[in-house]
Amino acid sequence: MYNPVVSSITPAYSFMKLERRKVVDGVDFAIIGVPFDMAATNRTGQRYGPQHIRNFSGMIRPYNPDQRIKVFDYCFGVDYGDVEVIPGNIHKTYQNIEKELDPIFKRNIIPVMMGGDHSITLAHLRAAAKHHGPIALVHFDSHCDTWDELFGEKYSHATPFRRAVEEGLVDVEHSIQIGMRGSLFEPEDVDGAIELGFKVLTMREVRNIGFESVIKEIHERAGDKPVFVSYDIDFLDPSYAPGTGTPEVGGPTSFEGLEFVRRLDGLNIIGFDLVEVLPAYDSGDITAAAAANIIYEMVSLIALKRRDQNIKK
Amino acid sequence: MYNPVVSSITPAYSFMKLERRKVVDGVDFAIIGVPFDMAATNRTGQRYGPQHIRNFSGMIRPYNPDQRIKVFDYCFGVDYGDVEVIPGNIHKTYQNIEKELDPIFKRNIIPVMMGGDHSITLAHLRAAAKHHGPIALVHFDSHCDTWDELFGEKYSHATPFRRAVEEGLVDVEHSIQIGMRGSLFEPEDVDGAIELGFKVLTMREVRNIGFESVIKEIHERAGDKPVFVSYDIDFLDPSYAPGTGTPEVGGPTSFEGLEFVRRLDGLNIIGFDLVEVLPAYDSGDITAAAAANIIYEMVSLIALKRRDQNIKK
Amino acid sequence: MYNPVVSSITPAYSFMKLERRKVVDGVDFAIIGVPFDMAATNRTGQRYGPQHIRNFSGMIRPYNPDQRIKVFDYCFGVDYGDVEVIPGNIHKTYQNIEKELDPIFKRNIIPVMMGGDHSITLAHLRAAAKHHGPIALVHFDSHCDTWDELFGEKYSHATPFRRAVEEGLVDVEHSIQIGMRGSLFEPEDVDGAIELGFKVLTMREVRNIGFESVIKEIHERAGDKPVFVSYDIDFLDPSYAPGTGTPEVGGPTSFEGLEFVRRLDGLNIIGFDLVEVLPAYDSGDITAAAAANIIYEMVSLIALKRRDQNIKK
Amino acid sequence: MYNPVVSSITPAYSFMKLERRKVVDGVDFAIIGVPFDMAATNRTGQRYGPQHIRNFSGMIRPYNPDQRIKVFDYCFGVDYGDVEVIPGNIHKTYQNIEKELDPIFKRNIIPVMMGGDHSITLAHLRAAAKHHGPIALVHFDSHCDTWDELFGEKYSHATPFRRAVEEGLVDVEHSIQIGMRGSLFEPEDVDGAIELGFKVLTMREVRNIGFESVIKEIHERAGDKPVFVSYDIDFLDPSYAPGTGTPEVGGPTSFEGLEFVRRLDGLNIIGFDLVEVLPAYDSGDITAAAAANIIYEMVSLIALKRRDQNIKK
Amino acid sequence: MYNPVVSSITPAYSFMKLERRKVVDGVDFAIIGVPFDMAATNRTGQRYGPQHIRNFSGMIRPYNPDQRIKVFDYCFGVDYGDVEVIPGNIHKTYQNIEKELDPIFKRNIIPVMMGGDHSITLAHLRAAAKHHGPIALVHFDSHCDTWDELFGEKYSHATPFRRAVEEGLVDVEHSIQIGMRGSLFEPEDVDGAIELGFKVLTMREVRNIGFESVIKEIHERAGDKPVFVSYDIDFLDPSYAPGTGTPEVGGPTSFEGLEFVRRLDGLNIIGFDLVEVLPAYDSGDITAAAAANIIYEMVSLIALKRRDQNIKK
Amino acid sequence: MYNPVVSSITPAYSFMKLERRKVVDGVDFAIIGVPFDMAATNRTGQRYGPQHIRNFSGMIRPYNPDQRIKVFDYCFGVDYGDVEVIPGNIHKTYQNIEKELDPIFKRNIIPVMMGGDHSITLAHLRAAAKHHGPIALVHFDSHCDTWDELFGEKYSHATPFRRAVEEGLVDVEHSIQIGMRGSLFEPEDVDGAIELGFKVLTMREVRNIGFESVIKEIHERAGDKPVFVSYDIDFLDPSYAPGTGTPEVGGPTSFEGLEFVRRLDGLNIIGFDLVEVLPAYDSGDITAAAAANIIYEMVSLIALKRRDQNIKK
Repeated sequence: MYNPVVSSITPAYSFMKLERRKVVDGVDFAIIGVPFDMAATNRTGQRYGPQHIRNFSGMIRPYNPDQRIKVFDYCFGVDYGDVEVIPGNIHKTYQNIEKELDPIFKRNIIPVMMGGDHSITLAHLRAAAKHHGPIALVHFDSHCDTWDELFGEKYSHATPFRRAVEEGLVDVEHSIQIGMRGSLFEPEDVDGAIELGFKVLTMREVRNIGFESVIKEIHERAGDKPVFVSYDIDFLDPSYAPGTGTPEVGGPTSFEGLEFVRRLDGLNIIGFDLVEVLPAYDSGDITAAAAANIIYEMVSLIALKRRDQNIKK
Repeated sequence: MYNPVVSSITPAYSFMKLERRKVVDGVDFAIIGVPFDMAATNRTGQRYGPQHIRNFSGMIRPYNPDQRIKVFDYCFGVDYGDVEVIPGNIHKTYQNIEKELDPIFKRNIIPVMMGGDHSITLAHLRAAAKHHGPIALVHFDSHCDTWDELFGEKYSHATPFRRAVEEGLVDVEHSIQIGMRGSLFEPEDVDGAIELGFKVLTMREVRNIGFESVIKEIHERAGDKPVFVSYDIDFLDPSYAPGTGTPEVGGPTSFEGLEFVRRLDGLNIIGFDLVEVLPAYDSGDITAAAAANIIYEMVSLIALKRRDQNIKK
Repeated sequence: MYNPVVSSITPAYSFMKLERRKVVDGVDFAIIGVPFDMAATNRTGQRYGPQHIRNFSGMIRPYNPDQRIKVFDYCFGVDYGDVEVIPGNIHKTYQNIEKELDPIFKRNIIPVMMGGDHSITLAHLRAAAKHHGPIALVHFDSHCDTWDELFGEKYSHATPFRRAVEEGLVDVEHSIQIGMRGSLFEPEDVDGAIELGFKVLTMREVRNIGFESVIKEIHERAGDKPVFVSYDIDFLDPSYAPGTGTPEVGGPTSFEGLEFVRRLDGLNIIGFDLVEVLPAYDSGDITAAAAANIIYEMVSLIALKRRDQNIKK
Repeated sequence: MYNPVVSSITPAYSFMKLERRKVVDGVDFAIIGVPFDMAATNRTGQRYGPQHIRNFSGMIRPYNPDQRIKVFDYCFGVDYGDVEVIPGNIHKTYQNIEKELDPIFKRNIIPVMMGGDHSITLAHLRAAAKHHGPIALVHFDSHCDTWDELFGEKYSHATPFRRAVEEGLVDVEHSIQIGMRGSLFEPEDVDGAIELGFKVLTMREVRNIGFESVIKEIHERAGDKPVFVSYDIDFLDPSYAPGTGTPEVGGPTSFEGLEFVRRLDGLNIIGFDLVEVLPAYDSGDITAAAAANIIYEMVSLIALKRRDQNIKK
Repeated sequence: MYNPVVSSITPAYSFMKLERRKVVDGVDFAIIGVPFDMAATNRTGQRYGPQHIRNFSGMIRPYNPDQRIKVFDYCFGVDYGDVEVIPGNIHKTYQNIEKELDPIFKRNIIPVMMGGDHSITLAHLRAAAKHHGPIALVHFDSHCDTWDELFGEKYSHATPFRRAVEEGLVDVEHSIQIGMRGSLFEPEDVDGAIELGFKVLTMREVRNIGFESVIKEIHERAGDKPVFVSYDIDFLDPSYAPGTGTPEVGGPTSFEGLEFVRRLDGLNIIGFDLVEVLPAYDSGDITAAAAANIIYEMVSLIALKRRDQNIKK
Repeated sequence: MYNPVVSSITPAYSFMKLERRKVVDGVDFAIIGVPFDMAATNRTGQRYGPQHIRNFSGMIRPYNPDQRIKVFDYCFGVDYGDVEVIPGNIHKTYQNIEKELDPIFKRNIIPVMMGGDHSITLAHLRAAAKHHGPIALVHFDSHCDTWDELFGEKYSHATPFRRAVEEGLVDVEHSIQIGMRGSLFEPEDVDGAIELGFKVLTMREVRNIGFESVIKEIHERAGDKPVFVSYDIDFLDPSYAPGTGTPEVGGPTSFEGLEFVRRLDGLNIIGFDLVEVLPAYDSGDITAAAAANIIYEMVSLIALKRRDQNIKK
């Protein structure tokens, strides 16, 4: 079904050279860019993240040896292109994202969104919750992004998960945030997330309890709920992902960062995003390499799920 | 009066190592950063422009041989620091800019603002017009920035000068735009500026009529009106100023870019800005070098004006 | 007909966001990438040239003010994607290029090819000559590329135009090479081109006789013959185009480099290429800016030609 | 007391936007830049280190979750600016450093110095020892810097700690050097430090005995002596800190590099420095991120100490 | 015997400032550059790898503290310069490599070759096998490079080890490949190597069985056979070696990458190569740092071997 | 006589792949690196300048079409390697330079020195004057470098030409400085040079009187005196030479920068240097391209001189 240009020398213009087309029939997943960065503090330029990831993704190949699956034998996908964003107007942009995602969620297609800054996840969750009800969130990041306001603004890249809880989009009892670290403005920056009901595992706790315990915790927490996986590339240590807006030193390796995704196998995931890739600071394109491979692991989970579903049928 | 740290090895933390302090008494000019870039299409990250220019400005020295003046013998200035900007909220940011500039214009201090994207100039003009009435605009740029809307938004880095005309801030009869070039969406992108009443000299016209004719045209146009000089660094060719958001090839050299400022001597300038410096694309820091020297020429004009005023007194 | 995504914030995945599709019906021109760089001496990596140009081209807009034409009102084009190249096998790659171009030339579609190194032009000329007979070549470059051999190899980026003459693809009497400069291995490096029958204008001669005389010479030389325009980005000075394989200092500005293309209006051009863009050395992406704008001027010439043809009809 | 500009979008011109002023009254710590690099072999340009660290430090926030302290609730500090250095004259530069530090040590203010190359630490130790007597040195580095001469020169970035011992500034019995690795000119490069009396833990030994043992060793060694902590950024592996003069592969991670500082809590530290940051090689500014966070951990230790002192009082 | 310029400030023009000369008398090892990259898919430009490594190697010093040996006390070497390569002609290039290596292997000099892309190793093995018969291969890489064809081509950087087995150059029973990871086109990409007879330890297996078991496996596998060590720099994780053509995330650290070489002590190594360094993507020159140190460890093994031989004699 | 490696794909380790050897017999010119940068204010790292120029110079070819000469048919040269410099000790470094140059000047070999910062020219002039008496200086630069002191230091990169006059090394009556521009500390920065007796043509004067008049002035000034040409790469505009320590915007193009050297033909030049190349800021290596070509033009002048001498004989 998938028939990529069989030449690793030909650069990619779509994720893994998938067909770049807005179709929903017969599609299992859709790669979607969301080039919005108007809600970022610190460094900005995340709008070029999707392009940067696509550019690199031409090096990725269809067989995943760690999951032992040839991904396009079990699922069919397209690169849906980019959502039209409105510079300087976050609410209209949110509307565009929701409108774009609606037919996708409606058909049980799994979207894999590439940011852009983290503010966009609120619109993703709105679109997801409309079809699935409150979602279990599995959130990899160095920040909780549960502030109430940023400079008096309710909608920014620091606030999406508080808004999501307030809007009833997230089932906090089954949600978890992993990897928090770095200096804070107030203890509340993390404590506030806990008070909202999230399970929070800081990086230090991850190091203390160990990788396998984290995985166990995620699965116990999410159970069989519909899950949305939100992955901020600044979850990785800056040496593995320098190209991001608010780097925090002391994070996990890219090996760990991939393993966390691989081990989500078995969850009932209904949507993914990977945000905050910022090409202008990406020396040697290694952030693109990490991000493209993380997305590839997300797609591999979809293939595993579809294979399972076919077997069970 | 001015007593810079006399060591070119000590890096600058303020423009030319001027005192970094918010004072208005006894001050002739104030260098002000406006790190706002939320209204930019194409590349973004102009928020780091002021810092980038300050970092380089430590290499600039007080005697201007082309204007034959030791600038701080005739005028006293401070680095006023940065205006507090609100990510994602252009209107509150405008209010902050206007509030910050008000006491400055009130005391006839000449502000020299460093952007940030070009949207911020609207707030500069509001603050200026409040004290001086409609202003003659001398505008160096590769774009007219007189669109009506950008993606349905009235306030962006493509629309400030149409808004300024609508708000009665600019005296179009005495205003001029210089350097326009590059592809357009519609002929109206330039024609619209002309219809608004601006004199527009495209880059091609600049090449055709020659440098001296351009200077003559500027002076005739502006006359003795209060003048605001707005300088978008993308006026320069990208080989001289790669670090900007929307580069247009085929522009003037840095030599010409400096000369245009030097030859504004004699105009009644009441404010300056220099916008759209974007460090992440500034290879070898040459855009910072150009921008810092352009601002230095602006400050030199202030010194010349003050010397003249003292002589005349 | 052309309906680009009307958002300059959405990055391009095709040249100017044209539809990326292999169609020949109803098409006036086709943008084609040829990511081949196996025949380059000095720096290599030109295979990423087409992607790099496409990435930047999202900033280019449809109205060309210098030619006073809205290009897509008069011609319709697609981004045909990349030719499949064979690493390490120049002859099979040539065959692929010729096979890809054949239906395009057959339907009088004008191809605009993006290299890749200069060796690929031989295949372009073969495909062109098959339909048009011997072609008048208008060649902008800092090198003649008319060597007989490079390290004993007959086919490389230094030899395409000698091979083209030998194969009877080029009508040397009506051909011209412009911009040669820099050190040579032997005087024959330039003299050999002249002996083959080319008119050669070195950079120094360009400076001596002046721009208008060069234009006149080109038009007299080419007459009404079918013309192929081959543009090596190293024609420009390295300060305007650092991202190339064999930079030669002392070249023309980007303003001149664009004007040369604009002034080809009136020639009977049947094909274009723009080669030797090498992203890894392209500081600030200014080479991409120059290349994308040069290709835009090529497309504008096609629009002018089509407008003329319609008017004449 | 500390009232930073509450906007992470406004760039920093001082460390963490502390007030940039030379005051000693009511101050617990002073951040001081020492932009000297005239004594460096290999890569140079460390003079821009302090500026580079300050530029990044605007992203750091006041609450330290790992130490559970809001640092500016317990200690007050200023950014003291840069010491005036004399290019090409190390001895006059030493005098300037000592003169600048004297009133600081006199008032029991804890200086946190940012280099510059490692030669400057000799002057720091002279100033410290003048007030505290021989100091226990805790030294993180990949090199011992205890050579006798470098190209016949007694004062360079390779010799400060031998000079410090000779001048009686360091209490070697209570001092320790950690992290040494990489090729040497002679075995004596490390053995010489041991012969001087230092405890030396090479990187290999650190890996062998484990993190907790290293911490224990440091505390046993230093006891309750007055301690000076000197931290060469090349202690970190080059993947975490590429921006330095003499990188040595095979070093600790940034997580470990921060933990080492955090675990110094309880020592009687009277001064810090962080040296050898070299911006020109700092891809993605990750060295700045590491360095700024290490200094932040140093400041956090000061806050912890002050809190303890208040509690004990 | 070895008398390097004793100044780490003088840049290197040869590996570790060894004499750059083509001599074979009295020489124990020869550093040889092979600037060929015409057989690479994905990023290219490996031809500048040898120069890049030499440039950095001036920072490396003669005493190896981890192996406790002053390397040039026991072995004498030269920098033999670069093999002449033929752009676009892999077979003539192979011939040149073989011709260059022949007198070296003949005299039992140990060559240490710097690539260049991995295709060149086939010629190295041919030259080695001519003198030593089938060789035990110890191969560090993230890819097996045992494809049969790449785009129909039998000779490329993806096929050398299959060709080597077919030509009888490698004794697969005593050979091992270590570090494979990342996505594949087919399971056969790794399984094919196993079917050829290689022992393959993927990165995941390396993590599972642990470092010491890997070392044991290597020594058991190679036994006392003549060994050729081929080290692709993409064995390291991209955060430690961004400057390469086909980076695969999730690899070992530089500390591990060095240790693997150190622990080869005791094997009967008759040749080394280190390939795929690509300077254009090497941010902060950290790939050069890693590569130069790996080669230094290779040279140290030669010194240890010579010392042993002298002791045994 | 000259037999370069005939492969432009093999990188250079010496200037233009000349033999790298310290010989004086039968040599017409010697390329010499002086990697000293301890006397630089502003950016530093010029010590890597010679290596950077050599790296690029492999692209330069032996026939100079502008001078119509195959350079190595008329003169023979070597790359003499680098002078041993002493970090932190300018006087010992001066001694080493003088000692190295002495046998070269003694045999009427023409040295072509590559810096390093401009302080080193004083030692060059000492060595030259010892053999030729006071020298006519032809000096291309954006700064006069005739300060009396820099931070109280008599010997730095800002003072060499005042020292040279004081030491009687320069015949000011026949000397000229060209290209001065940019801000100054005091008018004396330029006036001081004039008072010393130099003819000074600022960049503005160059633009006013025109290229041919400048050339005439140089020849009239220098007459038939022995001439030393000192070329600071910051003479060029930063867009052509970003990789330097103290860039001044508004300078000449690389075309002009080369022409100035070409037109020195006919002068009795006895030595050259090219200084202040700083690789860390050299985006796209275009400064290296400019510098290597300027040195090539210097070598071409030597070839022209030798050809003349042979013809005259």
